[in-house]
Amino acid sequence: MKHRKITLSEQEIPEKWYNIIADMTNKPLPPLHPGTKEPIGPDALAPLFPMELIKQEVSGEKWIAIPDEVRNIYSIWRPTPLYRAYGLEKALDTPAKIYYKYEGVSPAGSHKPNTSVPQAYYNKQEGIKRITTETGAGQWGSALAFACNHFDIDCEVYMVKLSYNQKPYRKVMMNTWGAKVFPSPSDATEAGRKILAQDPDTTGSLGIAISEAVERAAMNEDTKYALGSVLNHVKLHQTVIGQEAVVQMEKAGDMPDIVIAPFGGGSNFAGLAFPFLRLNFDEGRNIRCIASEPTSCPKLTRGVFRYDFGDTVGMTPLLPMYTLGHNFVPAPIHAGGLRYHGAGVIVSQLLKDKLIEAVAHDNIEVFEAGVTFARTEGIIPAPEATHGIATAIAEAKKCKEEGVSRTILFNLCGHGNFDMKAYEDYFAGNIVRHDLTSEEIKASLAELETPEIE
Amino acid sequence: MKHRKITLSEQEIPEKWYNIIADMTNKPLPPLHPGTKEPIGPDALAPLFPMELIKQEVSGEKWIAIPDEVRNIYSIWRPTPLYRAYGLEKALDTPAKIYYKYEGVSPAGSHKPNTSVPQAYYNKQEGIKRITTETGAGQWGSALAFACNHFDIDCEVYMVKLSYNQKPYRKVMMNTWGAKVFPSPSDATEAGRKILAQDPDTTGSLGIAISEAVERAAMNEDTKYALGSVLNHVKLHQTVIGQEAVVQMEKAGDMPDIVIAPFGGGSNFAGLAFPFLRLNFDEGRNIRCIASEPTSCPKLTRGVFRYDFGDTVGMTPLLPMYTLGHNFVPAPIHAGGLRYHGAGVIVSQLLKDKLIEAVAHDNIEVFEAGVTFARTEGIIPAPEATHGIATAIAEAKKCKEEGVSRTILFNLCGHGNFDMKAYEDYFAGNIVRHDLTSEEIKASLAELETPEIE
Repeated sequence: MKHRKITLSEQEIPEKWYNIIADMTNKPLPPLHPGTKEPIGPDALAPLFPMELIKQEVSGEKWIAIPDEVRNIYSIWRPTPLYRAYGLEKALDTPAKIYYKYEGVSPAGSHKPNTSVPQAYYNKQEGIKRITTETGAGQWGSALAFACNHFDIDCEVYMVKLSYNQKPYRKVMMNTWGAKVFPSPSDATEAGRKILAQDPDTTGSLGIAISEAVERAAMNEDTKYALGSVLNHVKLHQTVIGQEAVVQMEKAGDMPDIVIAPFGGGSNFAGLAFPFLRLNFDEGRNIRCIASEPTSCPKLTRGVFRYDFGDTVGMTPLLPMYTLGHNFVPAPIHAGGLRYHGAGVIVSQLLKDKLIEAVAHDNIEVFEAGVTFARTEGIIPAPEATHGIATAIAEAKKCKEEGVSRTILFNLCGHGNFDMKAYEDYFAGNIVRHDLTSEEIKASLAELETPEIE
Repeated sequence: MKHRKITLSEQEIPEKWYNIIADMTNKPLPPLHPGTKEPIGPDALAPLFPMELIKQEVSGEKWIAIPDEVRNIYSIWRPTPLYRAYGLEKALDTPAKIYYKYEGVSPAGSHKPNTSVPQAYYNKQEGIKRITTETGAGQWGSALAFACNHFDIDCEVYMVKLSYNQKPYRKVMMNTWGAKVFPSPSDATEAGRKILAQDPDTTGSLGIAISEAVERAAMNEDTKYALGSVLNHVKLHQTVIGQEAVVQMEKAGDMPDIVIAPFGGGSNFAGLAFPFLRLNFDEGRNIRCIASEPTSCPKLTRGVFRYDFGDTVGMTPLLPMYTLGHNFVPAPIHAGGLRYHGAGVIVSQLLKDKLIEAVAHDNIEVFEAGVTFARTEGIIPAPEATHGIATAIAEAKKCKEEGVSRTILFNLCGHGNFDMKAYEDYFAGNIVRHDLTSEEIKASLAELETPEIE
């Protein structure tokens, strides 16, 4: 029997998170106050986040200990399996060796609980009674609901009304874990009521949902806000993925030449790639790390490196990021988790410094890749995850063309059980390409008032 | 950190299936020809099943080797994890130790691929080009689609039209793995066309879908039929569950006093329980094995032990089984996998001989148990799986009342990702009890022409 799967015991769940900032020569630039344009300190984040998470957000320490209580919950689904993709290799007739790390085994079905659990934990430690967040398709909202339920913290999720109506099952999942889910805009907040008064029939947006969740946290002592990607502490928590993968690749007697992950705000990419970048830093290795984004939202491949807001309405600090402009509205692709205008600051600096790479795939190519994967490896991937598969397939085909064998590892960041509508649309021929013209990108960026960073 | 999860490496996937018939003092009675009422031999099954599966169906050998090719595909999700349910124990404040084996990690989301994979394998070995089957809610159909896809066999699934329309996502899942799915009754078969001519608006039934799938197999040389429960070879294949669990319980330094599994046709119950019954046979242990069924379909707790048809229309051989009568129509509970009028012959004989036990739970009790489980252990269970949880909770409460600690193990046979509508109904107060009166059961059994077996 071929060895298809490399598993670890729960004793092998990492004991520390890896903070890549410690190893970066060019540290990320500081966030700026939206009004004064001056660098802001950690205190500015205190109304929204518990102090321990703020400390992690600005930490320069290389390793940060994972609390036992967090590792204990991680053990529900961690360590996650790492697979050799024999079926996919055979179908591609490639000399490449392809591996994937599978994060869909978590109760919420993706990598998101890797950070929702520590976020809920640190909030609980500081006596917080309620956590609010926004969610689009529902992956992040359900991960936070799962975590808050464990720590007996109230969870309020503001879910974009369009998704709330179109994807009721993610909402029921959150309810099952005890969370309250509001269609956003809602009448639970001032921001929501104002927008509803102007346009009672609006289907909402992620920007509006963020405003509602942030308002609830800012207005209530016992309430904080949680974010599922972009921020440094979120990326930090996700490094358990790559740390496990390093050990698993060693057990397989192999090491990747290329590491690939889908890219939305950067958290699942960071999770897999940063611990391999550490090997580049510490051991002088030369592992290529590739972020894979949709052509409909190409901030890494076609955006600019500039200070921009994290949210649509401009309430957050200005962050140094690759961006398409905070007013950019991506096409309504099924990979909702990749529809974000900007990239987190660490990943942006790494790309600027050419320490990582980025590629983009169109919507049809990724679904072809997803169906090929489902039929050769058995697991039906989430639409977000198909982007990493598409890059892995492209690299494996290059190996065949060049007649060389390389070892490719990608992050299968979630399963598609809640996304079968996407596959139904694909089989019905209702998936279309969403390629942006240069004019469209230029127009979106023209609204940005900040200069490009040299 | 507490040890929550016991995992095994892929090298520890069992190498043999356990055939409990070899250890039974009272062997199951033979199947009878529906016309002559005489015992039938293996040849009678040849039009529907490949010879290797028929040999397994009638085998008296205690151990049957699992082909390497099957173990290789098993390794996509096997060995499955075994968990200590610390969260549930704490919530129940019970001295009992509760463990569960989790089969929801398979690509199809339940234990069903444990048998669909070997069934597809043996069909492939004998040159079969197409396999047909019926499915209700879609668990079995998607497991067979997954397996056929791997072996490049065409898969035709006749899906009860009501479910086909109500649960489109299971259908899309089957399509993703390349299967053709027909709403049953369909115009692809004589049986379907006849019923459609009589009643064009019928929503179908499992009985009709079986007739269509069987007709396609009987009429075509290169086509066979596959069943997802009830038959001996199906139960045989599922024993990988219990064999792994025995090893995992030993690794946990523990052994169950009570083993529990939900009961539809008997396959997931057999899968977990038979290898523990083997310990009773071989080592003189006294492990109680409890089958858990819905009060709306109580063949084990309120049915009779009698020869009856396996299907609704009376095409199959007569089988010696606990039954509610083959015309029995269970209430439309969400646990579609438990809505079967009879029990497989091996389990029926074991119950008759008091080697196993059975209990029933009402529909509200099982959803309460399911939500309690989701909130304490994190995993949202399939409606079928909630029945085993309800029994485990009842036994853990007994431990508390009696002030004794017992070790309880149950089979969490699938996740609820495709069943969120059921939880939505539960939270909305739309789940109702379905208790049968004695008169209803008597009326259903009155149509049976065969005498009770002494």
